[in-house]
Amino acid sequence: MRFFCYFNRFLHDHPTSTKLLLLSSLSSGGVVAYAEGKKSVSPQEITQKKRVVVLGTGWAGTSFLKDLDISTYDVQVVSPRNYFAFTPLLPSVTCGTVEARSIVEPVRNIIKKRNGEIKFWEAECLKIDPVKKSVLCRSNIDENLAGNNEFSLEYDYLVIAIGAKVNTFNTPGVMENCHFLKEVEDAQRIRRAVIDCFEKAVLPGLTEEERRTNLHFVIVGGGPTGVEFAAELHDFVHEDLVNIYPSVGDLVRITVIQSGDHILNTFDERISSFAESKFQRDGIEVLTGHRVMSVSDRMINMTAKSTGEDVAIPHGMVVWSTGVGTRPVIQDLMEQIDQGNRRILATDEWLRVKGCADVYALGDCTTVDQKKIVEDISEIFRAADKDNSGTLTIEEFQDVIEDVVIRYPQVELYLKSKHLFSVSDLLKDMYSNNREEIDIEEFKSALSLVDKQTKSLPATAQVAAQQGTYLSSCFNKMEKCKQNPEGPRKFRSGGRHEFRPFRYRHLGQFAPLGGEQAAAELPGDWVSMGRSTQWLWYSVYASKQVSWRTRLLVMGDWSRRYIFGRDSSRI
Amino acid sequence: MRFFCYFNRFLHDHPTSTKLLLLSSLSSGGVVAYAEGKKSVSPQEITQKKRVVVLGTGWAGTSFLKDLDISTYDVQVVSPRNYFAFTPLLPSVTCGTVEARSIVEPVRNIIKKRNGEIKFWEAECLKIDPVKKSVLCRSNIDENLAGNNEFSLEYDYLVIAIGAKVNTFNTPGVMENCHFLKEVEDAQRIRRAVIDCFEKAVLPGLTEEERRTNLHFVIVGGGPTGVEFAAELHDFVHEDLVNIYPSVGDLVRITVIQSGDHILNTFDERISSFAESKFQRDGIEVLTGHRVMSVSDRMINMTAKSTGEDVAIPHGMVVWSTGVGTRPVIQDLMEQIDQGNRRILATDEWLRVKGCADVYALGDCTTVDQKKIVEDISEIFRAADKDNSGTLTIEEFQDVIEDVVIRYPQVELYLKSKHLFSVSDLLKDMYSNNREEIDIEEFKSALSLVDKQTKSLPATAQVAAQQGTYLSSCFNKMEKCKQNPEGPRKFRSGGRHEFRPFRYRHLGQFAPLGGEQAAAELPGDWVSMGRSTQWLWYSVYASKQVSWRTRLLVMGDWSRRYIFGRDSSRI
Repeated sequence: MRFFCYFNRFLHDHPTSTKLLLLSSLSSGGVVAYAEGKKSVSPQEITQKKRVVVLGTGWAGTSFLKDLDISTYDVQVVSPRNYFAFTPLLPSVTCGTVEARSIVEPVRNIIKKRNGEIKFWEAECLKIDPVKKSVLCRSNIDENLAGNNEFSLEYDYLVIAIGAKVNTFNTPGVMENCHFLKEVEDAQRIRRAVIDCFEKAVLPGLTEEERRTNLHFVIVGGGPTGVEFAAELHDFVHEDLVNIYPSVGDLVRITVIQSGDHILNTFDERISSFAESKFQRDGIEVLTGHRVMSVSDRMINMTAKSTGEDVAIPHGMVVWSTGVGTRPVIQDLMEQIDQGNRRILATDEWLRVKGCADVYALGDCTTVDQKKIVEDISEIFRAADKDNSGTLTIEEFQDVIEDVVIRYPQVELYLKSKHLFSVSDLLKDMYSNNREEIDIEEFKSALSLVDKQTKSLPATAQVAAQQGTYLSSCFNKMEKCKQNPEGPRKFRSGGRHEFRPFRYRHLGQFAPLGGEQAAAELPGDWVSMGRSTQWLWYSVYASKQVSWRTRLLVMGDWSRRYIFGRDSSRI
Repeated sequence: MRFFCYFNRFLHDHPTSTKLLLLSSLSSGGVVAYAEGKKSVSPQEITQKKRVVVLGTGWAGTSFLKDLDISTYDVQVVSPRNYFAFTPLLPSVTCGTVEARSIVEPVRNIIKKRNGEIKFWEAECLKIDPVKKSVLCRSNIDENLAGNNEFSLEYDYLVIAIGAKVNTFNTPGVMENCHFLKEVEDAQRIRRAVIDCFEKAVLPGLTEEERRTNLHFVIVGGGPTGVEFAAELHDFVHEDLVNIYPSVGDLVRITVIQSGDHILNTFDERISSFAESKFQRDGIEVLTGHRVMSVSDRMINMTAKSTGEDVAIPHGMVVWSTGVGTRPVIQDLMEQIDQGNRRILATDEWLRVKGCADVYALGDCTTVDQKKIVEDISEIFRAADKDNSGTLTIEEFQDVIEDVVIRYPQVELYLKSKHLFSVSDLLKDMYSNNREEIDIEEFKSALSLVDKQTKSLPATAQVAAQQGTYLSSCFNKMEKCKQNPEGPRKFRSGGRHEFRPFRYRHLGQFAPLGGEQAAAELPGDWVSMGRSTQWLWYSVYASKQVSWRTRLLVMGDWSRRYIFGRDSSRI
């Protein structure tokens, strides 16, 4: 992710050099990924090391492991999957544009580079005991093999990065009748299911109505994953399948159901409407303002939000791509630590699970509970008001402003929303009419709207990876920062926080729309759409691959698709 | 296969030019595969065409379809798999040397080249009714899709090429506890199972005994498939897995169990002993003379044939790779046509199912029942004895010998076994001591040993492919040959057979032994072993690929393996 970060900053500064970058980014990404230090450790040291248990090998867990200094920790990793998957390419796997194996890298290959000191167990965590500081794990491997499948691990620090499960919002029939798109196996299943729909539709003796039903592909959720899958499927059908199933080419229908008013509604409006008009041209139906009430094996039942009318449409296959839910093991932990009434596990701004010592959580399984500035406003005022005059001068406020901005990132978002460029603009705003001092009420009212800008972070690979990198850097300097805290001032208790809190930097987001067209939100509110954006997508996604092997495989798959099309064998 | 045939004949004539051939074979194989004629057919013609139903899309079915002249037939193909799989590479798929998708080609891609006139249905044949001339089929596609899964097809000619099922010889526990290696899915399952054994073996809390058990891989059957799998597995373990599972590298054990005295006992003795000594050096245990009595989830029970002693060894995984059995649908057909007491469906030498008009069978599901020469010997004598003298002169015999050799291929094998180079040598042998005539008893005694040379054809891709090509050429000239039969003389009824009977040409056989070593039996009793044979194997297998796509993918996989090793992700 470090590379992605450099890459995007560079792009931001030099927006026109996109194409030149293609080759250089492809050739340098791997160097960064492989530039791991090798340190050898004597056995004596190992016993004194703190034991870190990492649950999960997704974006968060892997990026945490990649930079962790293993000379100071004894690391054990537990995950039911022995590989890291490059999930942003999952929609491409559903239609065979990219092969499943091209986007996975064995965890053991990744940790082997860390000099063999990290241990990996292929198992699922069943229970976290934050009192005894242990986790109970069970391997899902074939019961017929010899040996017990359950084991416990004790930890000094626990890093939870197990991701989320799908969220069906308890809609009846979804679990039984829908496909999901979270795991590599899901993508492989979808690929087989698409071929099944076509093979069934061409069989002798079906009515045209039955053929149409089987070839109606429905995607629930107009977020980036759903939209990308719809686009991939459209390309697969129209570039490949209609040629080998010519008799049913005209019967195919793709529908995206979105409860909101627009698809891609987390993106810039321009992207959202570009996507909608592209889909309209392509014949992909977009059904906005409809809420799915239930899904049966052949029908999907919805309610139109505006009219309250019930609509039922027959389908061949439904892909459910909306929402994330909390896994049972996390739910159980939450009940143990008084978070039982929350929807999702909360951490503080340092990714420490609230109410539970030495447990960290990152990625999709958690949310950062950002402290509100209003809660601390009296303490900030008191800390800034060094002379206890009851009023703050500009100088006094300037003295604390840096710590305030670090501790409460919503301040920065607030400035942006007010089109203020720096904190000094905020000060000018506060101390208007050449006033030199403000009292606490004025201070409160000036900052009262700041907390409204607090945003919860999206459940994306980018957030997870940044959190992993952040947490490993904290772990690496833990001893050092105990002596010399580098974080912002503690306004309540005095002193300083050990580390600066985690801050997410949004480096942009892609939305591939099919037909070699993509849209992208890039840093600095720059929006890019069209064919060149697709090339940017190719180059960024190739450079972000975790290893040279997957990088070459993914590029090979893209080339194969250009030359031979996508494979339609049902395996 | 045509190309393979040319290729091998060339090799035979120029045994030293093996390496030069590598590039040229790679670049020309595809041209032959793609050189399909395109003919357009008007709708009127279609109705008058004879309906051919082909069951199966393996080697036999696909090679039949590849050359069939579709301007004269209305062709429908039924197979539960919508792809052709290059089965000789299945052992490579089990360990990820080659990806599953690289060895499959959609049937629709293959038949698309035949101008869209061949219809394909993804379904399994449940019942053949040779009286009504129809087949009942059922699709195995998800029941939830709309439309009936069963349908019937009527035929004028039926071509059965559905292959064989595994044969467990009713050994208890084999179906439940063993892996097989007949389908692409089997190979994928084995790949995951191997990784499971390693992941389980490294889990915390297992005893060393349990780890050893999980890492004991047993292969039952020392034929080419079993031996190649053992070799692949050995390479996978020692080239890749020991590096990422270093703690258990020493505990791995691979055992090949063979009931006969040698592995690869259908090959030349030199190859068999080369393989045995290679395996001994590699540490692959070969347990000959042991018959497997039962397999449980953790143990495999055998009897040593020499001593009668019972042996039980614990295992982590068993691959059963011995014998072929008859599928239920064929068994059912056999009972309808008075073949119920046979083990395997019999055809005559023209691949026509015995006792059943207009039904052909080829590949692993059938065996050619070669007519014995002794049964016809009086008729041959009578036909040859034109002057009814009761004795045959050399001239009289020479007049029929060509037809005899064509009709009874065992004659040629007999000559070979007696080290006679041509039929005239046989005549010299018969008419020894300068005798000019022989009577019927002498004639019978001279040919009495010929039938002992009759061999049933092995269940290999090569036989199946040659049968497919043969049958399509018969179909293509059916009208012509009805007018002008080109087959040998009918000694019993007079006249001529329409076609020459099928004759198998053994073009050689490879046995890859791991570590870049292979052994090969090549035409003309030429035996080749070692590293250069492995390169010959690469070049022949690349050239035999059914399409340029799979050819490039397979070569890409081989290169990837060289550079990055095999992937150990459990997907």
